[in-house]
Amino acid sequence: MMKIAILTIGDEVVSGKIVNTNASYLAKILETNQFKISKHLAVRDEEEEILKGLAFLYDNANIVITTGGLGPTVDDLTKEICARYFNEKMIFIEDVFNQIKTYYEKTKRKMPSVNKKQAYFIKDAIVIPNDNGTAPGMIYEKEHKIIINLPGPPKELEPMLHHVVLPYLKDKWDIESLKKQYRLMNIGESDAETILQPLYQKYTSIKIAPYASVGVVDYMLSIENKDNQSVFDRCCDEFEQYLGEYIIGDWSKTIQELVVELLRKNNLTLAIAESCTGGMVSAKIVDVSGSSHVLKEGVVTYSNEAKMKRLGVLENTLIKHGAVSEETAREMALGVKSTSGADIGISITGIAGPTGGTKEKPVGLVYSAICFNGKTQVYRNYCVGDRYKIRLRSTMLILYKLYCSVIKTL
Amino acid sequence: MMKIAILTIGDEVVSGKIVNTNASYLAKILETNQFKISKHLAVRDEEEEILKGLAFLYDNANIVITTGGLGPTVDDLTKEICARYFNEKMIFIEDVFNQIKTYYEKTKRKMPSVNKKQAYFIKDAIVIPNDNGTAPGMIYEKEHKIIINLPGPPKELEPMLHHVVLPYLKDKWDIESLKKQYRLMNIGESDAETILQPLYQKYTSIKIAPYASVGVVDYMLSIENKDNQSVFDRCCDEFEQYLGEYIIGDWSKTIQELVVELLRKNNLTLAIAESCTGGMVSAKIVDVSGSSHVLKEGVVTYSNEAKMKRLGVLENTLIKHGAVSEETAREMALGVKSTSGADIGISITGIAGPTGGTKEKPVGLVYSAICFNGKTQVYRNYCVGDRYKIRLRSTMLILYKLYCSVIKTL
Repeated sequence: MMKIAILTIGDEVVSGKIVNTNASYLAKILETNQFKISKHLAVRDEEEEILKGLAFLYDNANIVITTGGLGPTVDDLTKEICARYFNEKMIFIEDVFNQIKTYYEKTKRKMPSVNKKQAYFIKDAIVIPNDNGTAPGMIYEKEHKIIINLPGPPKELEPMLHHVVLPYLKDKWDIESLKKQYRLMNIGESDAETILQPLYQKYTSIKIAPYASVGVVDYMLSIENKDNQSVFDRCCDEFEQYLGEYIIGDWSKTIQELVVELLRKNNLTLAIAESCTGGMVSAKIVDVSGSSHVLKEGVVTYSNEAKMKRLGVLENTLIKHGAVSEETAREMALGVKSTSGADIGISITGIAGPTGGTKEKPVGLVYSAICFNGKTQVYRNYCVGDRYKIRLRSTMLILYKLYCSVIKTL
Repeated sequence: MMKIAILTIGDEVVSGKIVNTNASYLAKILETNQFKISKHLAVRDEEEEILKGLAFLYDNANIVITTGGLGPTVDDLTKEICARYFNEKMIFIEDVFNQIKTYYEKTKRKMPSVNKKQAYFIKDAIVIPNDNGTAPGMIYEKEHKIIINLPGPPKELEPMLHHVVLPYLKDKWDIESLKKQYRLMNIGESDAETILQPLYQKYTSIKIAPYASVGVVDYMLSIENKDNQSVFDRCCDEFEQYLGEYIIGDWSKTIQELVVELLRKNNLTLAIAESCTGGMVSAKIVDVSGSSHVLKEGVVTYSNEAKMKRLGVLENTLIKHGAVSEETAREMALGVKSTSGADIGISITGIAGPTGGTKEKPVGLVYSAICFNGKTQVYRNYCVGDRYKIRLRSTMLILYKLYCSVIKTL
């Protein structure tokens, strides 16, 4: 089996100035394409450290992918040191040099002379073009060892991985795996894993891998051999039987993208009234380019006064039931729908903590409501985590509920 | 000089399921305390891999800090394998076992029998108590090599680092360094670095380290020897002369915390009108516990209709100058102040992209306004980055402007 190791080169990563998101991104994408990651190593911009790192990683990996150190400065040593490791010389490639010059011209700048260095590669190496920067990548193979050099900035690295590195690796090892992605919401990772226990036991040849973040659990089901189509299909069917009610689609779209797309397609407008989330729900919607067609307005009515004045929540409701209650959530959703003239009004009110919780209404209690099509549905949930996580979880949850509710109604 | 290497143990990190934030956190805290991080390595939960990793890291580091693998399951092998590496036996410590039991009792659960494993340590090792979980840490020294085992969850690791590991290391190496933190806003890292060039050249014995994130650049100035107080003070003075106008304080508080604190202290209330940021500014304010005393309300008037209806922006203004203009920003700030009755009204309107930009009004153009004390000040800025970054940068910027403006007025 092909094993890949990831070598991050750069003082900024080692000294903690930036988080090594490249390593986890590369690992996630490669693992979901049937490659096995053996380890990650991050070293400083020092020749000896990089050489020792390469020797260590090749000890049980056939492929090393490096990130960083492809820039034009004297600190950028990655390609040069890899050439030294393989005992090879670098040659200047005129074509690549012209591409770098063109990149500068496109951005209306003059290329500094130091950039010439970026056009040197090991002879016979594959050059990976970089459409988003000046640092081309390199793939080189010698004596069953493969080195792949990618630049540090994620915006440059990611397209190079997808457009050149993955096709190269798949072609080389003739990997034609079967894969299926699922995105789940409204369920936690441990609950999903418990439900899936029978699947893990039944389909031992299929890799079932969860990737959890706040409010979302992504799953990748995969199998190496393409001949296993029927067993793979059966496994996917069963996965959908077990967890179907939580599946919102594959990994290509976020819940806010799905919501905006659904509302836009159906010419529906939205208004949002937020208390504890304080604008997070609106901000998620506005994350989506084109959301202006959908979002009529948002209001952050954090105070009782604003809830009454902006949304027409009754003072009596606030006194009798409190700001965090089914009744207040309902009146907020109704109020924001009617004052904005939107087709759908949603609301959210809860106790984000760390203070303000009581025995009856503990920190994490959140009410949300959706007013649509003549009906108002209120949801009561308990969210765990700190103040930020409680707010983010309840934001994700109301977006999910909104999506389901609109689909069900249409 | 003491060199520290970080060893992360766990399949979730290696396979890309979680980002290795522990490594960067440990590195940042240790580097700002005069320790040098040599490298980071992440390996799978496999005995041989962990042993090889330890051997590799001790090659040029005196101290290895591990994270992960201290749980109660059979996969959790860290302490056991470290004992094997040092050729030492583990012993059961009754006291620690009772502490783990007490932790379970506090959370009203019965301790499973597997947790007994967590009370085993190398003889004569220092046990690091864990107040936030069941996995105690361990510090052990043999033949000039030190191993420090910390658990994986950041909420458990971070207090153990600050309360036990740092004091232990400082005491051992008698490090009494001088340090000063600065938090800068309204300036980018490269501009700040350019301005600081003379300081870097003049004070070569002082470490000047920037840590940049969106909208914020943190600096740590430090020197190893406590006897250099006067030169260190001079360097800090000059730092403040160069960059004083951008300094908002030390690292202890975010800009939203400073804003909420300042307004609360002065009994001032705030109302927020957002267009392109879509609720981000309000959400940042609500991030701060206790912000309910300050935030009267927020409105997300993404559509022109909402800008007119909710804020009283004139139709003529929108037609003549457009939604992204000095005039609209001004009327939005005035409008949200007067309709809410708050002491301060702020607004933000801009082109977050990727579409919607023109030659006159390109993507990244953002107007923001602050209406306070009878005056309305409008700011025009160009923010770089993708849609999300443009929105986040403009959010940080208006919070900064608000903070400065209130301080100047009072």
